[in-house]
Order: sequence, then C-alpha cells, then structure tokens
Amino acid sequence: LGQQDRHLEQAVAAIDAVRRGPVRVHCLTNSVAQNFTANVLLACGAIPSMTVSPGEAPDFTDAADALLLNLGTLDADRRAAMPASLDRALAQGKQVVLDPVLCQLSSIRLDFAKQLLASGRLILKSNRAEADAIGKTETCCQMITGPVDRIEAPGLVCGVENGHPLMDKVVAMGCALGALIAALAARTNDPASAALGGLAWFGVAGEIAGAKAEGPGSFAVAFLDSLAEVQTGTIADRTRIVP
Amino acid sequence: LGQQDRHLEQAVAAIDAVRRGPVRVHCLTNSVAQNFTANVLLACGAIPSMTVSPGEAPDFTDAADALLLNLGTLDADRRAAMPASLDRALAQGKQVVLDPVLCQLSSIRLDFAKQLLASGRLILKSNRAEADAIGKTETCCQMITGPVDRIEAPGLVCGVENGHPLMDKVVAMGCALGALIAALAARTNDPASAALGGLAWFGVAGEIAGAKAEGPGSFAVAFLDSLAEVQTGTIADRTRIVP
Amino acid sequence: LGQQDRHLEQAVAAIDAVRRGPVRVHCLTNSVAQNFTANVLLACGAIPSMTVSPGEAPDFTDAADALLLNLGTLDADRRAAMPASLDRALAQGKQVVLDPVLCQLSSIRLDFAKQLLASGRLILKSNRAEADAIGKTETCCQMITGPVDRIEAPGLVCGVENGHPLMDKVVAMGCALGALIAALAARTNDPASAALGGLAWFGVAGEIAGAKAEGPGSFAVAFLDSLAEVQTGTIADRTRIVP
Repeated sequence: LGQQDRHLEQAVAAIDAVRRGPVRVHCLTNSVAQNFTANVLLACGAIPSMTVSPGEAPDFTDAADALLLNLGTLDADRRAAMPASLDRALAQGKQVVLDPVLCQLSSIRLDFAKQLLASGRLILKSNRAEADAIGKTETCCQMITGPVDRIEAPGLVCGVENGHPLMDKVVAMGCALGALIAALAARTNDPASAALGGLAWFGVAGEIAGAKAEGPGSFAVAFLDSLAEVQTGTIADRTRIVP
Repeated sequence: LGQQDRHLEQAVAAIDAVRRGPVRVHCLTNSVAQNFTANVLLACGAIPSMTVSPGEAPDFTDAADALLLNLGTLDADRRAAMPASLDRALAQGKQVVLDPVLCQLSSIRLDFAKQLLASGRLILKSNRAEADAIGKTETCCQMITGPVDRIEAPGLVCGVENGHPLMDKVVAMGCALGALIAALAARTNDPASAALGGLAWFGVAGEIAGAKAEGPGSFAVAFLDSLAEVQTGTIADRTRIVP
Repeated sequence: LGQQDRHLEQAVAAIDAVRRGPVRVHCLTNSVAQNFTANVLLACGAIPSMTVSPGEAPDFTDAADALLLNLGTLDADRRAAMPASLDRALAQGKQVVLDPVLCQLSSIRLDFAKQLLASGRLILKSNRAEADAIGKTETCCQMITGPVDRIEAPGLVCGVENGHPLMDKVVAMGCALGALIAALAARTNDPASAALGGLAWFGVAGEIAGAKAEGPGSFAVAFLDSLAEVQTGTIADRTRIVP
C-alpha cells in the first residue's frame, strides 16, 4: 500500500471509531459557529461542549478527548480561556486543532494565533490567506483549505478534491470541520489521517447533500443528514486524493 | 379522574393558552441554544427575549411572563444577570425554570446552581448526573430527563415515555424544552402540569418529526413544523404517562 | 417614470450588484441572530463578518463595504465596539444600518440608540414601538416594519406589502433584513432604494417559501433557498408598492 492508501485506511478507522463511541470535543469557537458546530459533532456521533468562560473552559477540557481553538469572534473571555485550556490539553496529551479565522484582518488575532502555535504542536487548519499571514510555523499537521484542500504533514503531503460549491454558502462549515478533525484526532494517533478523514467525510457528505439540495438552506439540512447517514465504505470509495 | 388525568387536562389547557395568546419568556440561556430556543418558542406561539446583559436582563424580566435560567456557557454577564433577574421574577410571582446544564463538570457552575435554588422555589429541569451533583433541594417541581423523563412534584410523581432518538442528535433540544416549560408555567398555576405539558408537546412533536426525518438535519426542521402544527388533541391522545 | 418606479429600478440594480460581486458587511449584531444573518448574507451573495470584540470590530469595519448595528443583546463588548466602528464607517463614507431592537424595553438601549443616531446620518430600521420610543430623529432613510412595511426618505415615501405570516415565526428575520439592506446600500448611492430592495427581496422570497412550507422550520429552510434562487426579474414583477 502507498502512503496515501495507508492514511486513508487510518482515516476510515478513525471515522468508524468516532461513530462507535462518544468522543467529547471541547470547542472554544466563535459565537456564529457554535450551534452548527455542535450539530455537526452530534450528527457524527461525537459529543460537544462549548463554554468559553475562562473559569470553566479548563475543567471542560479535562472532561474532553480533544480541543478546538477557533479564533472567530475573539473576545476577552475567549482570549483568556484558550491558553489555559490549551496548556491543560497539551499536558494531558490531547490533540488540539487551531483555526485562525480571518487572522489576516486583525493584528490582535494574528499575534494571538502565533502565541498559541508557539505553545506546542497543533493541527493548524486555515485557508491560504490565513496561512500566508501566519508564515512559517511548527505544527503536527497543516491543512490549507481552498478549491482543492491541502494536507501537509510528516508522511503525507496531498490534496483532497471532494466537496460541493454550496458548502461555501453555509456559514461555519469550515469551523465545524475543525471540530470534527479534533474528534477524529482523538481516535487516531496520526493527525494527518484525522485531517484526511475530516475532509473526506465532509466532502462526500457535501456531494450527497448537493445532489438533493435546492439552495443553501436545504443544503445545510441535507448535509447534516448525510454526515449521519453516509456509509463509511462510501466515504472511502469516493474520496479523491490528488498529489 | 386520577391524579395523572387531572394534570394532563391542566397541561393541555396550558398548551392551548400558550397557543392562543402571546406569552413572553425571558431566556437567560447559553449562546449555543439561543437561536433554536427562540425558534421553538415562536413555533409554539410564545415570544422570546434573550438579552443576557446584566444592565438589561432585569428590565426584560419585568416585561416577561416567565423566566428561564440555563447555566450552559456561564460567563460573567450571565452570572451577574441571573440573580438580579431571578429576584425580580420571584418578587412579581413569576414562574422560573432552572436548567443547570453539565453542572457536574464545573464547581463554579454547581455552586451557582445551588445559590439560585436557595433563592426561592423554582422548577428544576436536569438530567440524572446533574441532579445527583446538586443533591437534595427544595423546588416546586423537579424534572429528571432521560430515556424515560421523570416529574416529581407535590401531587404528581410519574414518568413520560414520549420522544424519538433523533432528539438527542439536535443540540439545545433540552435547553429549548426548559423555555417552553417556562411559557406553560406562566399559563397554569401548577408547575407539574407545565412540566408534563412540555414533555408531552415535545415528545409527540418529536415522534411525528421522527417519522418524516432522514437524519438529524431534517429532523430538526420537521420538529419545529410539528410543534406548530400538531393538534392539542393529538398531544393529549398520544401522551404516555407511566408510574 | 414615477418616483416609485425609479427607486424600484435602482433597487433591482442593487440586488443584481450584490449577487454579482462580494459585498462585505460587518455585522455588530445580537448573539441570537448572528448565524441566521450570516446565512442570509451568504445566500444573497454577500460576505458577512461578525466579530463584536471592541479591539477587532473597527479593523473588520475597515475591511467591509457597509456596517450593521443591531442592538439586541447589547452587552459591554457591543456597547464599546459600536461607536468606534460607526465612526470608522462614517469617516470612510460607508453606509450604516441601525436596528434598535426592543429599545422601548430598556432605557440603556434607548439612550444608546439615540447616541448612535446623533453621530451621523444612518438608515434606521425599526418597528412602530421602537420608532415611537426614539421619537423624531435625523436619518438618511427610516423604515418602519409592520403588517405593511414603510419607507420614509427624501424622495420616497411608500409602503411595501410583500411577505408571508411565517416570517414572524422565524427568529432574527428582521435582524437579517437589516444586514441585507446594508449590503444593498453599499451598491447604490440611494439608501431608500436599498431599503426598498431589501423589503422586496425578503418579501418575495418569503412568499415563494411560504407556498412550499409546512411550518416555521421548513419555511426558514425554503426562505434561504428562495433568497438564493429567485430571479431578480421575479422580484421586480412581484413587488407591491403602496402609497
């Protein structure tokens, strides 16, 4: 088996594992994305918790299997809660996904993203503009989303071509993907396979939903249905990995 | 008529009353649940208000017929707004529902729940883990949700067996139930009947929606439709009360 | 052509312009409305940003083409972020929509609305109770929503009769309309035409969605689909302007 095939096997195993048992993900995410992110995790078999209060977030991180740090709507509570929760997660060997949403538009947010990345080896999920703003950094896996989503990690450098144009018309789609990758990362010891699994699950569910939808509203509904209903074998068969 | 039949009659009368006229519920609830909770209240004929700002929440409580205190995402604003709003509601003889979401995971939240419960006689809606963390307490009605939902109040101790498994796959379903029970409690002088009415309305609407849904996304949509469309007589006929 | 016809032509041109290219709207809006508002903007072809953090909002306003100030859930962050962002937008000649949600229930909110209105000429979108609480004020366009929506601006005083009763059963429908009007105002130099375009687009999409919906849940879904799919010519044909 080639490198990509081995990673796809591990990704599929992680998807099955998330569906089998309750993986808890604590999500320090923006207020726009909280509801949809929680519904995506539930559709996938995972359990979300979402409090951003600095006094509570570290305790909720203790009770979780993985942590999401999403920098949209970065208010004082979130800025205080994230470093403390991140330290807790790293000390406990838990996987952490960082999504530095629109960090190219705010120097506060960009500096904060760099500070978090300096704390340990995270899974960094961003688009090209965010990645360019951050520049070179140490991660255990870097994803760059776009027309073709990219994964760059030790042992896996590839693109994934799944998805549907209506995914760009539902807010928080990318934010929710970060949470799902955190769930998958809690069930495989390979961050790159978690990234691949998240892109594949989302992309194939998006294609199935897109075939039924009449617009962005019905697409979002069908997407949640597809996340829950799509067979793991279908995900594996339809994933299109490119160089 | 037995005790349960009398309460079901009062529950059905409260459902009709909520549908007839505008009941205002001020919801101090978590940021994940705000949107869905408001849509549930609107589907049921009630009017939500949702501000959690400490300077505003007491005034909005004055304008409301009942108050919901939900402890998810318990930040500084919510911690300040809740006691002041609760005092206002109790002084005005308004019904208050407390939902101590996940209080077993955070000592701050658990202590705060106990403090609120010590202020007066509330309707306490929790699951078993939350109830166990809180321990013995004085309420005017205690609900314990689970595979069979339980009501324990002076004059009514019973279970309600309605619902559908997809209700666990939509975030904020239980949070929204708390808001609906507050609306019902504003229209009956019996908290236990309000609790029964909320469980029955939600449970029967969930069963109707579950029969149409293809997954959690379409379930949530059909659930809101069913809340609005289900005949009160259908709710009464299909409610399954157990000992 | 009469006054109303000329404004409808400009409104339709603005709708086409929003659909053609990315108009960015920074939305300082309430936490209940954020998600739906963002999805409405995306369905219409615009790009939302939503952070309310005072340290970030002015920078996001710089990157946007128009600004929405919605006073629901008016917390300390929003109170600090709004004047600073408003000053930035006005200095850059950008259009600003103010929606003083429920300001009649809170003196803090009412005073704040008046303070914002004193800063410059805004598009004021309110219902009758909110307008009465605010009293006489200088605006570049005042909209008063209700059974028949009203527009009062230099050069255009009229009502618009489109819409569907289920629009009142979906939370944040009016809040999202404010954001869409901001997007339209960025693409026409006439605020009254932006107001007319928003009411027409929403109203006609609501009528189309209402013909398909089985209740408030499926209505909200069909509404987002209709916003994206309705032909601009259909909007123009079906808009009912009254004196």
